[in-house]
Amino acid sequence: MKKTILTLIALTLVLAFAAISQTPPAHQHQVVLQMNVDGMDSWNQLFANIQNIQAVFGADKIQIEVVAYGKGLSLLLKTNSAFEERMKKAIAGGVVLAACQNTMRLRKVTTDDLFPFASQVDSGVAELIRKQEAGWSYIKAGE
Amino acid sequence: MKKTILTLIALTLVLAFAAISQTPPAHQHQVVLQMNVDGMDSWNQLFANIQNIQAVFGADKIQIEVVAYGKGLSLLLKTNSAFEERMKKAIAGGVVLAACQNTMRLRKVTTDDLFPFASQVDSGVAELIRKQEAGWSYIKAGE
Amino acid sequence: MKKTILTLIALTLVLAFAAISQTPPAHQHQVVLQMNVDGMDSWNQLFANIQNIQAVFGADKIQIEVVAYGKGLSLLLKTNSAFEERMKKAIAGGVVLAACQNTMRLRKVTTDDLFPFASQVDSGVAELIRKQEAGWSYIKAGE
Repeated sequence: MKKTILTLIALTLVLAFAAISQTPPAHQHQVVLQMNVDGMDSWNQLFANIQNIQAVFGADKIQIEVVAYGKGLSLLLKTNSAFEERMKKAIAGGVVLAACQNTMRLRKVTTDDLFPFASQVDSGVAELIRKQEAGWSYIKAGE
Repeated sequence: MKKTILTLIALTLVLAFAAISQTPPAHQHQVVLQMNVDGMDSWNQLFANIQNIQAVFGADKIQIEVVAYGKGLSLLLKTNSAFEERMKKAIAGGVVLAACQNTMRLRKVTTDDLFPFASQVDSGVAELIRKQEAGWSYIKAGE
Repeated sequence: MKKTILTLIALTLVLAFAAISQTPPAHQHQVVLQMNVDGMDSWNQLFANIQNIQAVFGADKIQIEVVAYGKGLSLLLKTNSAFEERMKKAIAGGVVLAACQNTMRLRKVTTDDLFPFASQVDSGVAELIRKQEAGWSYIKAGE
């Protein structure tokens, strides 16, 4: 009987800890940034945003993923040399820059058209949902 | 005494399960889409978004609600025949297209001015809050 | 032995309650509004939003914080007399209007340039993340 009780208590403790562990630890931050517009102003603000939140939280304490879709896909095109250095710096700081494959198909953009440091996701908008479901903060970047 | 202990354990298990069950089940997704702008580009992207996330998650696995307010209310006006078929298809796939009654009053839009498949909510922005409080993901659609 | 069991049960109950208490109470609402654009249309919509959600939830039941950064900082400049009365009314109703200090530095805006009722946050985008991490709803206001 006591064994049964102890087993039940152990199980209960595991369940309680599981419930608690679903909330993110206080020292870690995660944010997904929506980028579905083009234009210098929006992209300048995006990289200022990234720099600011890395400064506030610490670059090693916050995971940042930028999801580029719709008109925002142009950010990651090799032709966008004006932002290449800022993107490389972001990548070096651990930021993920992800291109939406649905937009790529729609706009006939191939992997070769993108900077080699760009990641890819099946669907930009689905990625925004998945990250929020995983507890990430979400921000619509740009104007 | 043992009865008391068992009662306490049962209560504890119920509480632990209740805590766990507050996280959404892994196979179900919910997203509310803000639509407060007008323009073909934004609306085209909206319906592309809907199609994409239904393809990724399965139309029967994700609940989608579009909240049209401000300038976005025009989407649901009967006069917007260019998007009627796409909206009907979305509705057939289980999507809710909701008009903001505050915007309706402000813009003197009546129920008769809206497509009959449009739902209504008291306040578009309050609806966005309610859905987030209920655990839905949130995305600002359009540009 | 029984004492140990009871201690374990007590600990388990505390953990379970802690997990449950991390969900916000049903009668309280919190929303952070992103304002990073300028223009009358966006600002008019912002204050209509505030009025609407206060009417729906009750002004004393919802905490509202507007985070002004990027071009949206102009909202809080003393020169923006057109919106002064609406902002004073919002403040009187408990709304926080916060200016981003990163944007202030970038645009050479000092505290003296801002309305005295404006609050300040170190980084607008970091504030949006912090509020979401604390369970607040998030809305990109404006167009």
